[in-house]
Amino acid sequence: MTAPERERLARAALNFVGEPGSVPLATEVAAKGGERAYDDLLAGRSLLSEDLALRAQRVDPVAELLRAAEQGIRFAVPGDDEWPAMLDDLAFADELQQRGGIPVGLWVRGPRRLDEMVQHAVAVVGSRAATSYGCQLAADIGAKVAAAGVTVVSGAAFGIDFHAHRGALTVDGPTVAVLAGGVDRAYPEKHAPLLEHIAHTGLLVSEAPLGAASMRVRFLARNRLIAALARGTVVVEAAVRSGALNTANWTAGLGRTLMGVPGPVNSAASEGVHQLIRSRGALLVTRPEEVLEAVGPMGSFMLREPRAAAHPRDLLPIADQQVLDAVPIAQPALTESVARIAGVHPRRTREALDRLLSAGLVECVSAGWRALRDTEAPG
Amino acid sequence: MTAPERERLARAALNFVGEPGSVPLATEVAAKGGERAYDDLLAGRSLLSEDLALRAQRVDPVAELLRAAEQGIRFAVPGDDEWPAMLDDLAFADELQQRGGIPVGLWVRGPRRLDEMVQHAVAVVGSRAATSYGCQLAADIGAKVAAAGVTVVSGAAFGIDFHAHRGALTVDGPTVAVLAGGVDRAYPEKHAPLLEHIAHTGLLVSEAPLGAASMRVRFLARNRLIAALARGTVVVEAAVRSGALNTANWTAGLGRTLMGVPGPVNSAASEGVHQLIRSRGALLVTRPEEVLEAVGPMGSFMLREPRAAAHPRDLLPIADQQVLDAVPIAQPALTESVARIAGVHPRRTREALDRLLSAGLVECVSAGWRALRDTEAPG
Repeated sequence: MTAPERERLARAALNFVGEPGSVPLATEVAAKGGERAYDDLLAGRSLLSEDLALRAQRVDPVAELLRAAEQGIRFAVPGDDEWPAMLDDLAFADELQQRGGIPVGLWVRGPRRLDEMVQHAVAVVGSRAATSYGCQLAADIGAKVAAAGVTVVSGAAFGIDFHAHRGALTVDGPTVAVLAGGVDRAYPEKHAPLLEHIAHTGLLVSEAPLGAASMRVRFLARNRLIAALARGTVVVEAAVRSGALNTANWTAGLGRTLMGVPGPVNSAASEGVHQLIRSRGALLVTRPEEVLEAVGPMGSFMLREPRAAAHPRDLLPIADQQVLDAVPIAQPALTESVARIAGVHPRRTREALDRLLSAGLVECVSAGWRALRDTEAPG
Repeated sequence: MTAPERERLARAALNFVGEPGSVPLATEVAAKGGERAYDDLLAGRSLLSEDLALRAQRVDPVAELLRAAEQGIRFAVPGDDEWPAMLDDLAFADELQQRGGIPVGLWVRGPRRLDEMVQHAVAVVGSRAATSYGCQLAADIGAKVAAAGVTVVSGAAFGIDFHAHRGALTVDGPTVAVLAGGVDRAYPEKHAPLLEHIAHTGLLVSEAPLGAASMRVRFLARNRLIAALARGTVVVEAAVRSGALNTANWTAGLGRTLMGVPGPVNSAASEGVHQLIRSRGALLVTRPEEVLEAVGPMGSFMLREPRAAAHPRDLLPIADQQVLDAVPIAQPALTESVARIAGVHPRRTREALDRLLSAGLVECVSAGWRALRDTEAPG
């Protein structure tokens, strides 16, 4: 199914005249639909600024869509099969971010269907000024999550974003880059090869029209889309002023799962993440499996908590464990004393001590029995 | 105020015949008081084991208390001013730990009053097999917390415990070591100088009678006292099998504040702590100030979240920020385009751009205005 062509053209025109994340425009379109919002704007019956009306008259949406199509770029709008229903949540998200609302449409470049790609998706974001620790983790999470069939959504920026996409690509996994500028432009320029690669295997998505440059307001608008296109967001590294925290705010505002990867407390690059875990209820995650468990379809990724390798003590019968626990660690004790403290009959204690001796868990010195070091005292 | 001498003698005797943390003994004493529990045991009217009754007949509590007093050691019991009321919470703590209950008494060695020392106290615990990262943090937390007048409670073990005590001692701050064996014995032996130091400036405390050796069951019993003698417990490092997790369980069971210091996710020594934060609701803490905020007397330690140094952008008037946000980061744009995207009148935009130019936040090239790198795009 595709949206009616007049609706698409109207929304394309509105997309050209309004800024990404413009709340008045989103509100108008939500109330009237694209076609009527556009007609009203052209006819001067709109509450939107006159400036917008003037520009609307100059835009030729048919030409714009054709120009895009020539570059393999489409403009997806509500009503298209491809339109992700999860974007609707943006209508209710807290608008404290200067930008907000459901986008009037999205410019999409790549061979895959957007709705399918983001059906199971997680955003992996973080600082541009990332450490090698963070970059390695981002790549590892990107790879393992994508290998499990979950799409990695990120912003193609330097640092964490880059490595998250790269991780997904190393396993030929699904990844979507949501850009602040046009999907026909490589920003940052150095990531042109990455973006080309993603355009051929995954998707590039942007709310900004073709040719649009990247600027701070558009990053703020873009971050809400990253949050909205994923079931949850993992912040891998973020200093206290990182833009990734803006994406985190959107994630929380949308009621999606917010996750953070901890790091050394003396690393400035982890400080923002630690704050998210401490004060914003972000879930601490340490491994890709924990990310999958948190955002995967219910029950599809069952996680086993990491446990230490079985300790020799755990393999003993309970009675032998009781005896072992009662053997002193430093100064040796006689069998009778061990029996008393263990609360086990002396004859059975003697038998247990023999087994513990064979197992190498205790030693017998002149003054009695002593536990060997590797039985490790608890605490 | 001190407890009646007969009650103290009865409890000292019971302490000698029962193991630390014996639940049947604690239950009996809670129901009858020390004196009657002891009399009943001697008269064979007790539900406690016959074995205990036999041993009770052999103990001479007067001699034991005298022997202790000669070494400067006292036996504190409920009714003494020194007895910390917070130990009463152990009557209600979940007894899943093999050991539990309010101790019948505590052997105390050192110049300070126990109740005063633990009035504002935090436990700082962790792995024996700690990393230098963990040891440094433990010392830092120990020092800063103690310098603020909050007592550092720990177990004098190798690794984190040692460095937590050491941190407190470096600032001549208050610290209490809770031992699994007798307070007259140095365990571990290598920590004899540390324990001597604490015995002269702080307190050594144990539920185990003089001369008692350290063994696994006694560590389990001891851990509940560490948790009970502090308002909260910070776990600095703990592998998934660390005994510090046992102390963490007691802390949670007692409804005290459980805290954990994160570390690199690839450090096995932080794995147990990450689990506590992930699954047990432990509060993530990264600095001593955060520990103080969590356990200090209400409102006494107000914490300011770390913030990045003020960014030049933050110092601008709002209108100038709006203009700056609309200046492209890569390709330059003309004033009119910046004005349109900023939603600011062209004349005012021109004035703002001039100010931004002087402030070094934008540059003017042949094709127009461009934001300079350090304005850092958000995300």
